[in-house]
Amino acid sequence: MTLREKYQHLRARTEAICQGLEAEDFVVQPIGDVSPPKWHLGHTTWFFETFVLLPHAPGYAVFNAQYNYVFNSYYETVGARVVRTDRGNLSRPTVADVRRYRAYVDDAMGVFLTTEQAFSSALRELLILGLNHEEQHQELLITDIKYILGHNPLLPMYPTHYDKPAVPDVAAGQWVSVPEGVYEIGATGQEDFCFDNELGRHKVYLPAYQLQRELVSNAEYLAFIEAGGYADFRYWHAAGWEWVKAQGIQAPLYWHQLAGQWHYYTPEGLAPLSLGQPVCHLSYYEAWAYAQWRGLRLLTEAEWEVAAPLLNWGSRWEWTESAYLPYPGFTKAESAIGEYNGKFMVDQLVLRGASEATTPGHSRPTYRNFFQAPARWQFTGLRLARYN
Amino acid sequence: MTLREKYQHLRARTEAICQGLEAEDFVVQPIGDVSPPKWHLGHTTWFFETFVLLPHAPGYAVFNAQYNYVFNSYYETVGARVVRTDRGNLSRPTVADVRRYRAYVDDAMGVFLTTEQAFSSALRELLILGLNHEEQHQELLITDIKYILGHNPLLPMYPTHYDKPAVPDVAAGQWVSVPEGVYEIGATGQEDFCFDNELGRHKVYLPAYQLQRELVSNAEYLAFIEAGGYADFRYWHAAGWEWVKAQGIQAPLYWHQLAGQWHYYTPEGLAPLSLGQPVCHLSYYEAWAYAQWRGLRLLTEAEWEVAAPLLNWGSRWEWTESAYLPYPGFTKAESAIGEYNGKFMVDQLVLRGASEATTPGHSRPTYRNFFQAPARWQFTGLRLARYN
Amino acid sequence: MTLREKYQHLRARTEAICQGLEAEDFVVQPIGDVSPPKWHLGHTTWFFETFVLLPHAPGYAVFNAQYNYVFNSYYETVGARVVRTDRGNLSRPTVADVRRYRAYVDDAMGVFLTTEQAFSSALRELLILGLNHEEQHQELLITDIKYILGHNPLLPMYPTHYDKPAVPDVAAGQWVSVPEGVYEIGATGQEDFCFDNELGRHKVYLPAYQLQRELVSNAEYLAFIEAGGYADFRYWHAAGWEWVKAQGIQAPLYWHQLAGQWHYYTPEGLAPLSLGQPVCHLSYYEAWAYAQWRGLRLLTEAEWEVAAPLLNWGSRWEWTESAYLPYPGFTKAESAIGEYNGKFMVDQLVLRGASEATTPGHSRPTYRNFFQAPARWQFTGLRLARYN
Amino acid sequence: MTLREKYQHLRARTEAICQGLEAEDFVVQPIGDVSPPKWHLGHTTWFFETFVLLPHAPGYAVFNAQYNYVFNSYYETVGARVVRTDRGNLSRPTVADVRRYRAYVDDAMGVFLTTEQAFSSALRELLILGLNHEEQHQELLITDIKYILGHNPLLPMYPTHYDKPAVPDVAAGQWVSVPEGVYEIGATGQEDFCFDNELGRHKVYLPAYQLQRELVSNAEYLAFIEAGGYADFRYWHAAGWEWVKAQGIQAPLYWHQLAGQWHYYTPEGLAPLSLGQPVCHLSYYEAWAYAQWRGLRLLTEAEWEVAAPLLNWGSRWEWTESAYLPYPGFTKAESAIGEYNGKFMVDQLVLRGASEATTPGHSRPTYRNFFQAPARWQFTGLRLARYN
Repeated sequence: MTLREKYQHLRARTEAICQGLEAEDFVVQPIGDVSPPKWHLGHTTWFFETFVLLPHAPGYAVFNAQYNYVFNSYYETVGARVVRTDRGNLSRPTVADVRRYRAYVDDAMGVFLTTEQAFSSALRELLILGLNHEEQHQELLITDIKYILGHNPLLPMYPTHYDKPAVPDVAAGQWVSVPEGVYEIGATGQEDFCFDNELGRHKVYLPAYQLQRELVSNAEYLAFIEAGGYADFRYWHAAGWEWVKAQGIQAPLYWHQLAGQWHYYTPEGLAPLSLGQPVCHLSYYEAWAYAQWRGLRLLTEAEWEVAAPLLNWGSRWEWTESAYLPYPGFTKAESAIGEYNGKFMVDQLVLRGASEATTPGHSRPTYRNFFQAPARWQFTGLRLARYN
Repeated sequence: MTLREKYQHLRARTEAICQGLEAEDFVVQPIGDVSPPKWHLGHTTWFFETFVLLPHAPGYAVFNAQYNYVFNSYYETVGARVVRTDRGNLSRPTVADVRRYRAYVDDAMGVFLTTEQAFSSALRELLILGLNHEEQHQELLITDIKYILGHNPLLPMYPTHYDKPAVPDVAAGQWVSVPEGVYEIGATGQEDFCFDNELGRHKVYLPAYQLQRELVSNAEYLAFIEAGGYADFRYWHAAGWEWVKAQGIQAPLYWHQLAGQWHYYTPEGLAPLSLGQPVCHLSYYEAWAYAQWRGLRLLTEAEWEVAAPLLNWGSRWEWTESAYLPYPGFTKAESAIGEYNGKFMVDQLVLRGASEATTPGHSRPTYRNFFQAPARWQFTGLRLARYN
Repeated sequence: MTLREKYQHLRARTEAICQGLEAEDFVVQPIGDVSPPKWHLGHTTWFFETFVLLPHAPGYAVFNAQYNYVFNSYYETVGARVVRTDRGNLSRPTVADVRRYRAYVDDAMGVFLTTEQAFSSALRELLILGLNHEEQHQELLITDIKYILGHNPLLPMYPTHYDKPAVPDVAAGQWVSVPEGVYEIGATGQEDFCFDNELGRHKVYLPAYQLQRELVSNAEYLAFIEAGGYADFRYWHAAGWEWVKAQGIQAPLYWHQLAGQWHYYTPEGLAPLSLGQPVCHLSYYEAWAYAQWRGLRLLTEAEWEVAAPLLNWGSRWEWTESAYLPYPGFTKAESAIGEYNGKFMVDQLVLRGASEATTPGHSRPTYRNFFQAPARWQFTGLRLARYN
Repeated sequence: MTLREKYQHLRARTEAICQGLEAEDFVVQPIGDVSPPKWHLGHTTWFFETFVLLPHAPGYAVFNAQYNYVFNSYYETVGARVVRTDRGNLSRPTVADVRRYRAYVDDAMGVFLTTEQAFSSALRELLILGLNHEEQHQELLITDIKYILGHNPLLPMYPTHYDKPAVPDVAAGQWVSVPEGVYEIGATGQEDFCFDNELGRHKVYLPAYQLQRELVSNAEYLAFIEAGGYADFRYWHAAGWEWVKAQGIQAPLYWHQLAGQWHYYTPEGLAPLSLGQPVCHLSYYEAWAYAQWRGLRLLTEAEWEVAAPLLNWGSRWEWTESAYLPYPGFTKAESAIGEYNGKFMVDQLVLRGASEATTPGHSRPTYRNFFQAPARWQFTGLRLARYN
């Protein structure tokens, strides 16, 4: 596929994700972590306009000079911006405005990408970064839409028009053993693409360990709830225990108990909890507490990456017990793009794998996702490990 | 006019106020005081459904049982409700849903009101309360829409499709003298309509005083700004001075200084400040500080009411220095309607008059509006007074 | 008594109030409203140093120039100061330092006051203001010490070394009737002393009303608790109801239920609740809710003042339903002293009477005390009224 | 030395640290991280009473049963406790009470420790843990006292009566090289003592790297300030940049600019900044930003431990870029002591080394200290590293 075809295919998928929404669904921001869908639509467009068209497409005229203020996410290099938690206070630009913006930039990109043959490798890399950036926002769109509608008191159903995968049930537990040794993890830079935070393939020493081929299931997690796990401080980090008490947490996000029966919210509405499915929407605190209760532990990111070929993965992002830190030799790009990853490397945990909401082909064994410990609006689950 | 005609005329005006909005404008709630326009549309409808149709229209079937949770404002009697500050997190019901709700209730009301002849006087009073309630929300719609769009970084223009009055410039200052005496204020209960907080016509003693026939103008208020009024604690309440410093207040709401020139935001967008217009969008703190600076004072609500026939009033709600307290003999109704006014009689100031956003015919000399001291998203101004 | 005798007598009483404390008790500030006792000791001394000695006593040398920053309460005119809520973070100056400061200023005042004959009337007024100011802080010392020790988990007893009056039990209820009429309230300026907020004797019209000769008793208030008054929103202001729910309020401050029996904290420690005593340590919300439950009301401050000669008053400050507003013609002094009262005239309620903690002779029928609606660490109670 | 001698020596040193304080200095808690000195005195005593005397000394009678509530720090196993941020609201128990408590427990311990010969090894380990625990609180006492007095507006001097080491100036920069390899870190369990978080000696692979023999000096850090480092977002984590802006940070803690000259607060009061001393009182954000500005990096904890014999260390805790995570095979003790370390292993950074405030002999190369990224009231500095 040409870059132009990839671009158009990707941009169409983004719109498909939003296709079933009402205009009002594009606007709200019930918590700071969740952005309004129209903000995602505008921001990904702004990314191509700001970092590709403006510096590289001669004669490109900005669609609306004020949009830089509205759609810049966190790039200090590029100027002032709407405070993150105010994104849900903006009714303008409207969804129709944002679609016009997308069409305008897509037209310009369509023309620009016909000259692909003349692109420098740096420009080609930048474009591929832009595509991967939009793929990340596709997943955020899916999770944010679920949050917006899943926290509406009407708990509405909503159609999904994208290639949403079926999630297989978890099979019977099976342990995979990995022998002690020095292994290599991280990306080499020879891949089609990777983010800067994956680069710097490097050696790590791992002791012998075992990990489960499968994720933890709803049935397994339910046993923790029924054993009183949310009421026993011994399984929790001090910060996790404060979180449980302050927020009144008693189950994963989107679990609802109706007439003594657990239900789970999906685009099809509330449905009885499917026990065989991998447990989802856990915070790091919950994943860790569950492992404590089992007398087992979470993986490190290196353990995960080394064993990745042997695992069933892809329906849930897996909390690891690794903090999100730079790999040896990590350096940030000089330009605004240097703000992409590095400046977040504090107080976050690495998640590995991929989820049912991840754009197909987006993730890979070296991929490093990261969130703060209390986050659970992503499709997050866990896998258990132990030492020999 | 029959009640049915009044109802239909009023409901149509509410829709006219919103006619120029985009769907997205109906959804957001940038501050707790401001409700999303679709919430106002639903809430006023819910008021008729809950207090009129359900108890009085035989066989009336509720449109959607979940709407009670969504559209109840503050009636504890009627059950649980969305936390006020979460109104802007709800994308559903959509604007179209709310319009269907309005149409459904309007149809039922249309039929019900054909039986007006059979109504008890209590039911008639309730209906007129419902109409006045919706008039109050018409003003809130106008102020909330202004806030939503006036705080959008794009500062958009927007069409207004309702009977918006022209506000005359303020004429030269002129003092009105009122002699000492015992006067009566408050409603007698013989009026066509009044709120319960106006009832209990009662005597008050007033010393001789003087007050200005006209409101304070932008030109006059600008002199206060230019004299450094916002930087001199001596003119402010202690709480007002904290507010000025904490919020960085330097001018009334919607004033913007561009290239050294003051502008003011209106539905026509930003325009140079019109010096002859009455100053607008002041907090109580600002109104009081201005009066201090002038060596004058605000009115009490009794002084205002006694002098009302002699004043030019109607374009700005006027902050008085009267706290919002019950009149002698005030009692709350036993039912949910008893929650309408009485429970707010603490920590609020009375405003008298009416504003350019008030529904024509809604206010009267005995009318008691009330807000907290820092509020300034209403069309609020001031009038000066002094003792002889 | 000469001014010098009055001064010395008063200052000695302040020290007597603190005599039973440990050094540590002088330091803490468990809530913003409560100041550390050593701050009161320093602040009242600073008042005499700053407003009397420095401008009027030739050659007076400041004890420590940094104390102005530490002991200024709220006088913007006099410069920067420690943030109020940080008073409890200061271990220095120590109690011994503060006592040295007091001794130093007392010595200087002792000398200065020997020249009383030469004082201008303005200076004499200022001195009397200083004495009354310290009397106010005597009451605050008593209430703040009670709060500090009454919120310590050890609930310690503590000796009181000042002239603490016995509070008589409340007698059987008796109604006093006041006929309709125009009355005068406020101070004339011919009194020995009054605060600026009492000045401007003025006429008020009062309808006929009745009020109770006695305060509400613990027994009466307990009936409200036992009737579920704290769980029924109908008796509460909206703001009061939020306060009850957010704070989990179920009884007046210092009430503790042990083994099904109500106790009350005093300097003698926890004791079984004395049913005949006037109820104490209520917020305005609670006083108002109680009156609502009884189908009665609180007094206005004018009603209280007119009837004062007929009432038993003095053991509890009585919440009135009057907001704290300026009297007709109120003006602030030009100097720093002008900040004493006027700038607080917003969002506060007037309390009338006096309490068991008030310095004997400090209050009078025209006296206007004021606090915010949720405050209950003062000795606050209520009296009931009704219209004829 | 016998355990008894060690105990008595240690307890005496704790008192020496506090010897120069006024009673008031023992009481306050200006920020949540800082505990009142008398709380430290009581808490370390409570630790011996609760975990040693009560379960192991037959017939021991608790000094005061209410002290468990007052002096429990974070042991959920042992019951309810004063909210951490309320420690500074407690005037009782007084300093004298706490000293009586110490004397009482010291007497009982003195008797108990004469039976050392009969102790099980588990009991002996518990006692040594208690000693190390008190050593940790000795350092906290030193840092908390500095904070309490260093944030008092009087900036008082205070005597120190303990063995306070002189801190040598930093020598000229010198790089130490460590070759690539698999190394071992962590404690073996054969040491005289270590904390549970050090246990599990395990292999790590390290690439070749270089690190500075010396800490970064004040002179070097000052160059960062003067180059505008606090005003340039490029050097900061996103969270660090928010912190700098929200708190208005412009220099390390305890740096004061007077008349254009930098000063530093010490027990001798404010003194001109000594340029040769190692920089101190940095947050992790600042340490990381400084390294970014230099084009270098912080160490990992494994890199530090492997190189420890080659380094000058001991005057500043050194921020590493390692998150505080469990070592392979880490398990918590079953009892309350299991709450000592493990439950804090999230959102904290490891610091290595020791500081001028660390009890002599307390630290060792395997020691893992940990704090949150914004903390800077400890004696924290940094060392630079780079890859070959």
